[in-house]
Amino acid sequence: MGRVTERRRVLRIRDGAVSERPDTLVAEEPMEIRLNGRPLAITMRTPGDDFALAAGFLVSEGALGAADELRNIVYCAGATEDGSNTYNVVDVSTAPGVVLPDITLERNVYTTSSCGLCGKASLDAVRTKGRWPVDDGPEPLRLTPELLAELPERLRASQRVFDRTGGLHAAALFSEDGELLDIREDVGRHNAVDKLVGRALQSGRLPLARTVLLVSGRASFELAQKAVMAGIPVLAAVSAPSSLAVDLAAETGLTLVGFLRGASMNVYAGEHRVALRAGVRRAAR
Amino acid sequence: MGRVTERRRVLRIRDGAVSERPDTLVAEEPMEIRLNGRPLAITMRTPGDDFALAAGFLVSEGALGAADELRNIVYCAGATEDGSNTYNVVDVSTAPGVVLPDITLERNVYTTSSCGLCGKASLDAVRTKGRWPVDDGPEPLRLTPELLAELPERLRASQRVFDRTGGLHAAALFSEDGELLDIREDVGRHNAVDKLVGRALQSGRLPLARTVLLVSGRASFELAQKAVMAGIPVLAAVSAPSSLAVDLAAETGLTLVGFLRGASMNVYAGEHRVALRAGVRRAAR
Repeated sequence: MGRVTERRRVLRIRDGAVSERPDTLVAEEPMEIRLNGRPLAITMRTPGDDFALAAGFLVSEGALGAADELRNIVYCAGATEDGSNTYNVVDVSTAPGVVLPDITLERNVYTTSSCGLCGKASLDAVRTKGRWPVDDGPEPLRLTPELLAELPERLRASQRVFDRTGGLHAAALFSEDGELLDIREDVGRHNAVDKLVGRALQSGRLPLARTVLLVSGRASFELAQKAVMAGIPVLAAVSAPSSLAVDLAAETGLTLVGFLRGASMNVYAGEHRVALRAGVRRAAR
Repeated sequence: MGRVTERRRVLRIRDGAVSERPDTLVAEEPMEIRLNGRPLAITMRTPGDDFALAAGFLVSEGALGAADELRNIVYCAGATEDGSNTYNVVDVSTAPGVVLPDITLERNVYTTSSCGLCGKASLDAVRTKGRWPVDDGPEPLRLTPELLAELPERLRASQRVFDRTGGLHAAALFSEDGELLDIREDVGRHNAVDKLVGRALQSGRLPLARTVLLVSGRASFELAQKAVMAGIPVLAAVSAPSSLAVDLAAETGLTLVGFLRGASMNVYAGEHRVALRAGVRRAAR
């Protein structure tokens, strides 16, 4: 357990020259998440922060929203034939009286009944489950492009495992002043976000109002959903968003920034939180 | 259906200058895969090649291995309240007599009984389900580093949607001579591979012996699993592999190449298929 990296032998080929040496790889292991003893999902993840991963996953699914709804989180013992613990099965128990939504074994939220399965239904499902609106409170949140532009470098400076393996996704949480609040890395980008959100739940910091979630890769629907479910008002990505991520942001009031690189960025939704110095020039095409 | 890209309005910020224009985004929509009418999985995917995606997913899960095991694949009609078809629910019917493995609603293959949940169990599950060994036949497959080095550029030259959106993963299949056999793009890297494998199943080309699968990003356990289940002997990735992907490759005889960039690459497993000109220098550390 807790092995974030592992060593393997590798043949390196550089312009025809071959050498053999040990290489550091990001660790990947399956983890099963159980809710009150019932298996709910299996995810391939990088070991570490497993309890936070489980808790954050359950926030995304609408099952948890506050620390006092948790009774405890444990590794299930005796999971192998020889009785040893693999530290790959995590059971989350909820406090007495907590009412759980109907989550199925599938890692998703879409019902396949009369509503049909489409992007619209996916958006509706997030809205139904959401505990908090994406809300800035009495004082509107306004971030300058200059502040946003600094965040990717701050994320990279804190990415320790990536430096050694090149194989990790990172997710970081920043305050409205650009201060790094937390960062997690994982082979799966959704796991990195779940770990961030789970740690926030465990320390009683949900909803994550007035924060910015930055992800190292693309912004998919799933990541936008996780931001909304945690009450995060701004999602920024180094790469492109998908159409459904933009639609979800527009519907929920989430600010979605993509292609955040150097002094450049695209704002796809929630532009009222981006403080622009000049007026907007409308391009011809 | 079939919308690979969608247009959305975007604010572009470049060094403080702001302009508003339409932007092209990669489309993302949920798709449910049913097997003989039973819901099996939901994946967020880029519409297009939906039948191939469903078929390829079922190859990865060990349910299908040959074109004649398919009866038909259809979109389920009447999925919305107004009776219209969302083209997001696909049902795969198997031919009479096809014996199916016990696949659950979860998109995974790990049993949580006495075997425990660990990397070893994940490897065992792939070995149990595999229909074909990773086998080159009587003549060993040998690929030169020079041939492998050319593949990423050939993939990029054929990536049409990525040019417009920057938001897609690509997977390409090459012959042992470096000829591009097929390429698919999707918001999900696993979907891109499933689409490739599904098209091969539909045209009776499984197992994909003597081919190379190239993926644009990282090589996870899941992608290595899909290669093995399709009988592909070589998996190459532009980025890093995970520890469990390397372990699976070593156990099954899959050749796994990572960090394939320019004339450089790392060979993590199955090095007997890489034709090296000179002997291997063993580095000190």
